[in-house]
Amino acid sequence: MKNKPLILVVNDDGMGSTGISVLSSIVREIGDVYVVAPDTNRSGLSHAMTLHEDICVEHVNAKKNEFICSGTPVDCVKLAVNQILPRLPDLCVSGINHGSNHSINGLYSGTLHAAMESTIQGVPSIAFSHLSYLESTSLNPFRNIIKDICLKTLRYNVPDGITLNINFPDVHFDEIKGLKICVQSKGSWKENFKLVHSDNLMKRYSISGQFHSDKTDLKSDSWALANNFISIVPVSVYYGAYLVNELKYLDYDF
Amino acid sequence: MKNKPLILVVNDDGMGSTGISVLSSIVREIGDVYVVAPDTNRSGLSHAMTLHEDICVEHVNAKKNEFICSGTPVDCVKLAVNQILPRLPDLCVSGINHGSNHSINGLYSGTLHAAMESTIQGVPSIAFSHLSYLESTSLNPFRNIIKDICLKTLRYNVPDGITLNINFPDVHFDEIKGLKICVQSKGSWKENFKLVHSDNLMKRYSISGQFHSDKTDLKSDSWALANNFISIVPVSVYYGAYLVNELKYLDYDF
Repeated sequence: MKNKPLILVVNDDGMGSTGISVLSSIVREIGDVYVVAPDTNRSGLSHAMTLHEDICVEHVNAKKNEFICSGTPVDCVKLAVNQILPRLPDLCVSGINHGSNHSINGLYSGTLHAAMESTIQGVPSIAFSHLSYLESTSLNPFRNIIKDICLKTLRYNVPDGITLNINFPDVHFDEIKGLKICVQSKGSWKENFKLVHSDNLMKRYSISGQFHSDKTDLKSDSWALANNFISIVPVSVYYGAYLVNELKYLDYDF
Repeated sequence: MKNKPLILVVNDDGMGSTGISVLSSIVREIGDVYVVAPDTNRSGLSHAMTLHEDICVEHVNAKKNEFICSGTPVDCVKLAVNQILPRLPDLCVSGINHGSNHSINGLYSGTLHAAMESTIQGVPSIAFSHLSYLESTSLNPFRNIIKDICLKTLRYNVPDGITLNINFPDVHFDEIKGLKICVQSKGSWKENFKLVHSDNLMKRYSISGQFHSDKTDLKSDSWALANNFISIVPVSVYYGAYLVNELKYLDYDF
């Protein structure tokens, strides 16, 4: 690559988050950077896109190529690639998310799905998350490993249709034992619905929940993170399985 | 099963759509039915869930166990399973969606992802979509095949962690050649961003787009639908691939 690589930075926590500020500053050491992020916290929006209303984009920092968008994380990527960047970027990085996107959490994550949308657009893409939900947790110890992963991805690309979903364990960097390529562990949320108002046939609930995952599978991200490894799950944007024999009971006479 | 099966019906087009009305009436011939659907059209919301506000639920038809919810399709499933239904249902059906959810479209689809959330909750789940976007397209010719698929799923279950994503081609039922178990075809949307307002550094866009997919792979849903087959793609809620050798270039010295 003769010229500096062109790098798109996105997230779902919004432009104001510490995570996107740290990630942007890391990739500015590597290439020409555009940041296109939601104008507010858009966590939990998965692969949602805006269908029924217009989207607003504001160029908030011309010197740094920073744009905020009124839409979802996936909208940010579509806008960036189609309207804002001068050409298709060489790399898209998403995050650094404040909170876990491993196991089943990736399915709900705007951080991961922004990167997956970028994969669909033909751009090598990586989602970074840290298991601590606290904005105050220092992400700076991860600068070198993030830069290394970005440089290697620019050099080697990623397999076709694959997004890298990377999670950092919530421990001191000195305690980290290494990187592990993993599969998603099984997991689920147990939601608590608290009734906050009831009026005849209408009820209003506030929602909270606890996350549980299986940490026994040595190949899984949940095991890796619980044992102080950084987990890397290669996520396919084509998530269909080919189960012809398993489903032949569905045969039907037309 | 001694008692009648308990069946949850959800969708993303909202309670007022023709598709959910047809689907509910089909499964009422099989079991005890609860319908929990968004209070308005919530298409394109994928696996989004509500994190930062309360959710309202209204029991709109006590005789028919019909509830509308202010949240996303995934919220509807979480509420149904945790608060509304008397026990975990034996089956969840989602749809019938007005418009394609094959190929990459499944990733954006609230119809498919409501069913996937139900799979995560441990319920055998099926998403139904018809390639016509017109509410006026008659869905009644599909009653028998839908009922047959539901009965077989109640009898044989589905493989662990798998949701069935079923799409009907937009042709007369007499022209349908059969059912095909498929993989997701490769595909993408080419978006058009139309600038509707520009004010200094702020721009507002309306978005439209055209969908393109690869119809040459004989195993794919796009080929099946283009050739008048009903496509069934088994979708895994665990979409991580295990690519240890392919990614060993990411090794890092700690």
